[in-house]
Amino acid sequence: MRIAVLGAGAWGTAFGQVLADAGNDVMMWAREPQIVEGIRDRHCNEVRLPSVGRLPVNMTATGDRAQAVEGARIVVVAIAAQHAREALEPFAPMIAQDAVVVSLMKGIERSTDKRMDQVVREALGGLPAERFAAISGPNLSREVAAREPTGAVVASADLAVAYFVAQAAATRYFKLYASDDVIGLELCGSLKNVVALAVGMTRGAGYGENTAAMVQSEGLSELVQLGVAAGAKAETFYGLAGVGDLIATCASPLSRNYTFGANLGKGLSVEQAAKVSDGVAEGVPTTAAVVAMGKSLGVPTSLASAMQTVLEEGIDCARMLEQAMGGDWER
Amino acid sequence: MRIAVLGAGAWGTAFGQVLADAGNDVMMWAREPQIVEGIRDRHCNEVRLPSVGRLPVNMTATGDRAQAVEGARIVVVAIAAQHAREALEPFAPMIAQDAVVVSLMKGIERSTDKRMDQVVREALGGLPAERFAAISGPNLSREVAAREPTGAVVASADLAVAYFVAQAAATRYFKLYASDDVIGLELCGSLKNVVALAVGMTRGAGYGENTAAMVQSEGLSELVQLGVAAGAKAETFYGLAGVGDLIATCASPLSRNYTFGANLGKGLSVEQAAKVSDGVAEGVPTTAAVVAMGKSLGVPTSLASAMQTVLEEGIDCARMLEQAMGGDWER
Repeated sequence: MRIAVLGAGAWGTAFGQVLADAGNDVMMWAREPQIVEGIRDRHCNEVRLPSVGRLPVNMTATGDRAQAVEGARIVVVAIAAQHAREALEPFAPMIAQDAVVVSLMKGIERSTDKRMDQVVREALGGLPAERFAAISGPNLSREVAAREPTGAVVASADLAVAYFVAQAAATRYFKLYASDDVIGLELCGSLKNVVALAVGMTRGAGYGENTAAMVQSEGLSELVQLGVAAGAKAETFYGLAGVGDLIATCASPLSRNYTFGANLGKGLSVEQAAKVSDGVAEGVPTTAAVVAMGKSLGVPTSLASAMQTVLEEGIDCARMLEQAMGGDWER
Repeated sequence: MRIAVLGAGAWGTAFGQVLADAGNDVMMWAREPQIVEGIRDRHCNEVRLPSVGRLPVNMTATGDRAQAVEGARIVVVAIAAQHAREALEPFAPMIAQDAVVVSLMKGIERSTDKRMDQVVREALGGLPAERFAAISGPNLSREVAAREPTGAVVASADLAVAYFVAQAAATRYFKLYASDDVIGLELCGSLKNVVALAVGMTRGAGYGENTAAMVQSEGLSELVQLGVAAGAKAETFYGLAGVGDLIATCASPLSRNYTFGANLGKGLSVEQAAKVSDGVAEGVPTTAAVVAMGKSLGVPTSLASAMQTVLEEGIDCARMLEQAMGGDWER
């Protein structure tokens, strides 16, 4: 089967390799000529995923939009969340009418407070829900690229579509589990970044596993309540795409949100942390979105609100815990 | 208030310090004269918790059983799970009739397959349920001893008793949340060791965060199903004593179960791993107990069963994942 992957960042490239390993002909699309040439001519992506070895021969790349999606039964989208809408719009007339569009993106669009499923379907001119699926799970790109065993959940309003995508991407080291809870999956993937920011902050402040685990446990409970109020299923949050992804993200010092939080925990201001990280992490705008979502749904979001106070007023880790968990928190 | 802590291992000592920091007069009981003298005369526990600084002045120790529990309103038990029954029996006639007994122990008694709440109450001559409480959470001893922020759940059949203990042990860095789900709390604390063993095994085999997170997610789902079938509340597993403790335990290379599993993942046999670790980890007998519990309750326990096959037949990590998660698992 022909599959297009739009966006050749670390995750797009690693997942492209999964699809190629599963036996598909994979066409990556990237804007940058250097990345296209690397994948097409030298079978590597030195720019975004230098750790990956030689990419499979049934994986190539193009900078041409029409060529990228031509004949593709599945179109995977892996573009930075805040640029997804703009980057996708030109593809709308080019994607086949029977193609399924799969989003790998996590985040909430800042300007609209919309989830990625909403952004993708709108950007593609009103893509029907039964032609859309999203994938999320404990999937650090470098480890997937190294073919370490893991899995993810693929969700679609049409379960048959979820099974179709799951089958197309199944390899010996990567398994996809089908679900029909698109909203839950989307919320897991974006909201966990707020928790990663908070866990990073406790690490930066010098605390170990206990504090990190407490924050993750509190964060999970907030996300579940928020998700259920928004129409998602609690079980999604307790599975691979929820607690699984949360654990992997919060355990990885490679995560941008974790690192950003760690710098806040060390006493850097948001401006200083953004300078070190070359921009704010996705969890920063997501924090505001979570607080707003909590207000509109009437769900308390004390961890997200505490992180909001960190971002706006620069309170330290002990004050953050105090606000998030109640009571006085000091050594 | 006077509180006795029976057992001056790492966790007993760290929790004794929490109780002393909370303003109680804490009397530790230990069998070993060296430990008693260390705590009583030099305010330290070089044997079991060398990392802890100078212990509070309102914390002392004795080797005399009657003196240990005399006048204690709360008697905390922190003895190795497999020796708890035998060590506790002599205390039965000495503990005041209105004292609350609090177990810090995690595990299942090998010879009887009983939980620690059952063992403690039996050993103390049929202690009524409303005089018993158990504590569990993300509480690595060294970090609690260093006064890093964390919390735990205290469960008792009588919620008022849980609140009483929670209040007695509250400090600025350690918070207790009350629950009435004693069975859930006990199962969380013991069953998570099987997951820690499996996660350690994936680490020993060279895998990173993704695989570890997938195994934790699968393990959590098994524990919840088992717990609910055994009469526990699902929410206990999704909270601080469940997912919180699981995350902290699986993240810590200091955990005995993690280390034991890591050695299995490196290819050591159970005998070799036991030699390196100075005995088998608690998760080893717990694995058999979980499989037996699953059978008797009619709940599938594929991760625990796979770990059982590891322990009995020495299969490798790829085979373990294959059995636990279904399908073929290889890089």
